[in-house]
Amino acid sequence: MSEDINKVSQHSIEPTVLSIDAMGGDLGVSAVINGIHIYSKRNQDVKFIIHGDEAQIKPLLAKRPNLLKRCETRHCKGVVSMDDKPSHVMRHGQDTSMWSCINTVRDKQADVAVSCGNTGALMAVSMIRLRKAPGINRPAIAILWPSENPQGSNVMLDVGADIRAEASDLLQYALMGASYARNGLNLEHPRIGLLNVGTEEHKGRIELKEAHERISEHAESSNFEFVGFVEGGDIPSNKVDVIVTDGFTGNVALKTAEGTATLMRKLLRQAFKQTPFAMIGAIFAYGSIRRLSKKTDPRQSNGGVFLGLNGTVVKSHGGADANGVAAAIRLAHQLAKNGFTDKLAARVASGSIMNNDVDSK
Amino acid sequence: MSEDINKVSQHSIEPTVLSIDAMGGDLGVSAVINGIHIYSKRNQDVKFIIHGDEAQIKPLLAKRPNLLKRCETRHCKGVVSMDDKPSHVMRHGQDTSMWSCINTVRDKQADVAVSCGNTGALMAVSMIRLRKAPGINRPAIAILWPSENPQGSNVMLDVGADIRAEASDLLQYALMGASYARNGLNLEHPRIGLLNVGTEEHKGRIELKEAHERISEHAESSNFEFVGFVEGGDIPSNKVDVIVTDGFTGNVALKTAEGTATLMRKLLRQAFKQTPFAMIGAIFAYGSIRRLSKKTDPRQSNGGVFLGLNGTVVKSHGGADANGVAAAIRLAHQLAKNGFTDKLAARVASGSIMNNDVDSK
Repeated sequence: MSEDINKVSQHSIEPTVLSIDAMGGDLGVSAVINGIHIYSKRNQDVKFIIHGDEAQIKPLLAKRPNLLKRCETRHCKGVVSMDDKPSHVMRHGQDTSMWSCINTVRDKQADVAVSCGNTGALMAVSMIRLRKAPGINRPAIAILWPSENPQGSNVMLDVGADIRAEASDLLQYALMGASYARNGLNLEHPRIGLLNVGTEEHKGRIELKEAHERISEHAESSNFEFVGFVEGGDIPSNKVDVIVTDGFTGNVALKTAEGTATLMRKLLRQAFKQTPFAMIGAIFAYGSIRRLSKKTDPRQSNGGVFLGLNGTVVKSHGGADANGVAAAIRLAHQLAKNGFTDKLAARVASGSIMNNDVDSK
Repeated sequence: MSEDINKVSQHSIEPTVLSIDAMGGDLGVSAVINGIHIYSKRNQDVKFIIHGDEAQIKPLLAKRPNLLKRCETRHCKGVVSMDDKPSHVMRHGQDTSMWSCINTVRDKQADVAVSCGNTGALMAVSMIRLRKAPGINRPAIAILWPSENPQGSNVMLDVGADIRAEASDLLQYALMGASYARNGLNLEHPRIGLLNVGTEEHKGRIELKEAHERISEHAESSNFEFVGFVEGGDIPSNKVDVIVTDGFTGNVALKTAEGTATLMRKLLRQAFKQTPFAMIGAIFAYGSIRRLSKKTDPRQSNGGVFLGLNGTVVKSHGGADANGVAAAIRLAHQLAKNGFTDKLAARVASGSIMNNDVDSK
């Protein structure tokens, strides 16, 4: 433990180093560099190691001398595209910016990695370079979900690292999710829910009933509240802070919600064009509607986090613009400052270290 | 087959009879009777058998003499509430309006049943009174999902009849979904998709890979197009007409979408109150926004259908208002006129009767 504490206290003195993959996002290198620039202007205590094509990165940094002096560029020839198969990248991706970005966290040169690239490939590279943390069977991807809670977001995991989850995995997701809610959302005593269908007696699969029991047993010692089963409609509600599910169900739910939000934004635009009155209304309400669109746009509420590896990786949305990238970097910085990787490992490995310590994260 | 044809042709001459459960909806008997009234005004070729508390139903019908003469009321003492357990209703629900409503379809006195009541109980009563159709292993609940398709809705099934589905069940859902799309949405050659995660090579559970193969084999002979795997984001899209999934995933997706739509409507209302400009905008855009809200309100796009039983049951949303009930009745009437129950049974029992007959439904 003394080593961990030293490391955590170092974090608060030395600047955090973030490892950024500049390639692979839909909007190109400039969106990533702009995102770094936006975030770094207000946060002086962070340095960046940027991985990708020097010929594209260097001119963009040269225009921003204040940023330039806090960045190190590592040239990489290869780029992982959105269509690349994870298994191919795992075998042949050594020259890519994604690989270099993860390696830098592996070699302890950076605290947290950030990439906008292909999720499947990023998880595959993270798995083979960082390896699973001791005691973890299945790593998970946790995302922030727009919600009615005061903090504006709930945490949901797993949203697609693995298509299966046993009861023991769901328990680990609950422990990791609670730790993430403390360190990412500053919730001391998060409320955990287990995603299920209906509230009738025949409810749920066998592994869910077993997980219900096991998560319930850990609630007090691991300092979270277990609210029991929740339904799909509760995901964006203020009944719960962390929603635990398997990666198949979580991924379908996430994409269904994105699809629904996209359809509603389209219908809203159509509604404003329906009548001359509505068009006048649109002009008056423009600013407010634009903020609503942004709030519910997945490219904005950014940053999936890979949990359960020896190192923390933030997956930014592929379509993220500069503000989206800045949001992902803010999350990475917060997790790095809190020494999240070490805390999470300690929390999970021991089931629950530091019982009844309300301040422990 | 000749019997079926006789029956179908009878449907087009004699008025259809619908069996309506007047009780159990959140808005009470008057919403149901109003819904029947709204629909019946424009549709003279339909009669109703109404089940429930005579003391509430009769005064409402007495005010509508044109409707009264096309209705028969069957008094029932019992009401299934939203909190009643399905297993309890199955054992002790013989005196309820829900039971009587389903029995009327079982006894061939009505073509299709409609109820706003408790979904779990309605499925349980339908299962024991109507029984599974020959060859069906797991009945399914199919719903209409607001979409970007010209018809305005896609079909999704199963959304919660059963929490499990094997490959053979998913194939039956595809066949039943295709038949429903033909008879409920008038789509001659519906496009079927199988819900899955990601598009990477590691995709999906074993039963999904097997179902992919089997559905693909049936596409030509059963007169549908198989578009392969689709993701959550495709559910409201115009890539597909029928989405096939297990009842656990389908139920989570449905409730997640409802939760997302509800959150967005709330945020929209907030957005219109944010600034004086936005409030003026809201006044101008009021009508259009109201139509949008209605379009995306699950209480409006109404009518889940139980498929795979010896009889068709339309489950209206519990919170449906009179217009919602009218929408559910419209769906029930259309399915009844088309002789849907018999066609579906023939279609599934034989795998695919009537090969290459484009007009067959």
